[in-house]
Amino acid sequence: MARAVELAARGHGTTSPNPVVGCVVLDGSGEVVGEGFHAYAGGPHAEVVALAQAEERARGGTAYVTLEPCDHTGRTGPCSRALLAAGVVRVVVAVADPSPKAAGGAARLRAHGVAVTSGVLADAAERVNEEWLTYARLGRSHVTWKFAATLDGRSAAEDGTSQWITSPEARADVHRLRAGADAIVAGIGTILADDPRLTARPTTRAAHSDAARPTAPAARPEVAGAKEGPRVRTPLRVVIDSEGRTPPDARVLDGAAPTLIAVADDVDTDLKADLLRLPRHQDGLDPHALLRELAAREVVSVFLEGGPTLAGSFMRRGLVDRVVAYLAPALLGSGRAALGAAGVRTIGEIHRLTFDDFSQIGPDLRLIARPHHTTREK
Amino acid sequence: MARAVELAARGHGTTSPNPVVGCVVLDGSGEVVGEGFHAYAGGPHAEVVALAQAEERARGGTAYVTLEPCDHTGRTGPCSRALLAAGVVRVVVAVADPSPKAAGGAARLRAHGVAVTSGVLADAAERVNEEWLTYARLGRSHVTWKFAATLDGRSAAEDGTSQWITSPEARADVHRLRAGADAIVAGIGTILADDPRLTARPTTRAAHSDAARPTAPAARPEVAGAKEGPRVRTPLRVVIDSEGRTPPDARVLDGAAPTLIAVADDVDTDLKADLLRLPRHQDGLDPHALLRELAAREVVSVFLEGGPTLAGSFMRRGLVDRVVAYLAPALLGSGRAALGAAGVRTIGEIHRLTFDDFSQIGPDLRLIARPHHTTREK
Ligand SMILES: NC(=O)c1ccc[n+]([C@@H]2O[C@H](COP(=O)([O-])OP(=O)(O)OC[C@H]3O[C@@H](n4cnc5c(N)ncnc54)[C@H](OP(=O)(O)O)[C@@H]3O)[C@@H](O)[C@H]2O)c1
Ligand SMILES: NC(=O)c1ccc[n+]([C@@H]2O[C@H](COP(=O)([O-])OP(=O)(O)OC[C@H]3O[C@@H](n4cnc5c(N)ncnc54)[C@H](OP(=O)(O)O)[C@@H]3O)[C@@H](O)[C@H]2O)c1
Repeated sequence: MARAVELAARGHGTTSPNPVVGCVVLDGSGEVVGEGFHAYAGGPHAEVVALAQAEERARGGTAYVTLEPCDHTGRTGPCSRALLAAGVVRVVVAVADPSPKAAGGAARLRAHGVAVTSGVLADAAERVNEEWLTYARLGRSHVTWKFAATLDGRSAAEDGTSQWITSPEARADVHRLRAGADAIVAGIGTILADDPRLTARPTTRAAHSDAARPTAPAARPEVAGAKEGPRVRTPLRVVIDSEGRTPPDARVLDGAAPTLIAVADDVDTDLKADLLRLPRHQDGLDPHALLRELAAREVVSVFLEGGPTLAGSFMRRGLVDRVVAYLAPALLGSGRAALGAAGVRTIGEIHRLTFDDFSQIGPDLRLIARPHHTTREK
Repeated sequence: MARAVELAARGHGTTSPNPVVGCVVLDGSGEVVGEGFHAYAGGPHAEVVALAQAEERARGGTAYVTLEPCDHTGRTGPCSRALLAAGVVRVVVAVADPSPKAAGGAARLRAHGVAVTSGVLADAAERVNEEWLTYARLGRSHVTWKFAATLDGRSAAEDGTSQWITSPEARADVHRLRAGADAIVAGIGTILADDPRLTARPTTRAAHSDAARPTAPAARPEVAGAKEGPRVRTPLRVVIDSEGRTPPDARVLDGAAPTLIAVADDVDTDLKADLLRLPRHQDGLDPHALLRELAAREVVSVFLEGGPTLAGSFMRRGLVDRVVAYLAPALLGSGRAALGAAGVRTIGEIHRLTFDDFSQIGPDLRLIARPHHTTREK
């Protein structure tokens, strides 16, 4: 199963809106006879790739799959049937499929006499498929909040100047992470202050989210089923802008990538852009409604670029699933904080996280952490 | 020389007010015949330990020393003469001795026909002896500023509550670092808010500063010359308190360790405590005058515990030589910042540092960094 999780990780950043899945097939004597992973939406599923490799040797054998085999006919046929047709007698599953339309694979297999074990190496398989499982279970996009700051948590000096606190290496890393997301989200404050492009412009070929996942392999070696290669994706750009204040000549409207401007449902605007109308909420637009609307558009993963006000609003509602912090070896002592008000009045209400990974990126430090409330619906 | 630096590191936290020094003696054929380090003030110098081990085999040989051999008679005799008496024909030095009373060893050796090479592995030898070299060159104590904060750089919530942001493991680590310093310094704001004891109460036997020095060995194995063991030291406690507002029943006045209350030279106070009278300066007492006065009392290394106001004042003047940051995997979004105003108005004036080390301490992260201006006198 550990190998299957490894295989699954290779699909990172290219399978959306599908999960990442890895599969290893053993013959009756326990010999590995097939390996596969799901490489891109519309491409063959992991089980199909592994079974094709195994051919007749799968008969009487065992399949290890990181996610319960699907039971529906989407762009490809149901994997439950493919496993039955191949004559596999045992299926070991890490995580059950939470999506109503694809679930039921285990039940069908059992009904046809296949022994199904579930929950094996579930933690690792959860982690590798974190974005999609959040999306499938909660019906909202998974959120990675990125910030760049000094060691004392500031992202601009007293007079508002901020270029460049982190290094070119850190900024290149941000572009790699952006490229692995389905959407890049920023607040109107950031658009008005910085006029960012919000596009993924990775400078190396490692243009996927593996860099931020300690469990994933750094390289993406060729493996059966990956031959056709991932499709090149352009993340959707989303601006959170209640009143429609985005300037018509803002770089996010340059046409280099699709862009959605989220405005309040009661606002009158003649902005020439794709608008997403959302209900108002405490601090502006309702972030939860935003993530549900994005999920309905098959946005599995969101890369939240801030600023601090918007990030605080997401944190307060328990809508940040992963934090990526770039800390520069520098101190400011004054100036804008990296995170705005996040609903904490007293120390008992602090947002606790767990560090997943830390690594040096050029002169800077990148920390990856997971808030504890991540799957708590608020 | 690398071995000599390794040996020198073993003296950390116990040689003050002397430097840490390591020495390796080779015989005429290049065989190692003696090793030593300076273990505690008043104990034998590294060269003397290594020569005693080498005995007659030192004759015609080479001595590697991390610091230029001393040329004066203090508590022990001059090492330059000991090397001459032993018949060493070549001495390799990493760093020259900057102290006027001990320097001149290299010159004396040369005058007696010994070949002296200098500057070998100087960077590593500088690093291992950083505290003492700062003290000897600048005539002020070396300053390590410690802070504990969340990932977004805050050390208390909006309502002032702050216990406990970092873990017991991190707090135990702070006690280990305190124990390696000659003095622990805090501002009156911290005394009034927290009433800390400011004593070193290490919970493990690793009661020295090695924990914060990636170059030093974790253990302190027995080696010739270290037999008598380091003396147990009690760091001096220092409160920066212009107006003498320290409450008479403050824990720092509990007698558990010596305490100095630094007050303004023009202040009338009947506080029953050892007072250090200092000139006033921009934000209160002059930190530079403080560090010179402490140096005059043979305080080589200061552990600055803050708070944020005092730390900002030190940073602004370039008086922080090392930063130790404990970052908890937590976010606050509001509340007190870890560092107060540090003289930076615009991004070009940012305090740049270099990360020396990062490691996980329990659930927290400890970062060690060195400000670039560290030896710039201000
Ligand atoms: N260090 C970093 O990593 C980083 C990253 C990004 C940005 N930044 C900096 O952050 C600064 C801008 O940050 P900012 O805090 O002023 O603006 P922001 O977070 O980008 O945007 C905040 C604005 O978004 C709108 N909004 C709509 N719904 C919201 C909701 N639910 N919660 C919060 N805001 C909502 C509000 O304006 P309306 O009411 O008009 O809708 C609000 O004023 C820039 O200077 C930029 O350089 C830093
Ligand atoms: N997170 C951490 O690691 C950490 C560590 C320590 C403290 N803290 C927290 O920090 C808080 C206290 O910090 P604080 O900033 O209020 O006080 P502080 O930095 O401890 O002390 C500041 C006071 O020191 C005096 N002072 C004298 N000379 C000074 C100079 N040159 N520069 C600056 N100050 C000078 C001033 O009072 P006078 O004018 O009366 O002399 C000043 O108000 C506490 O709540 C404590 O919990 C946190």
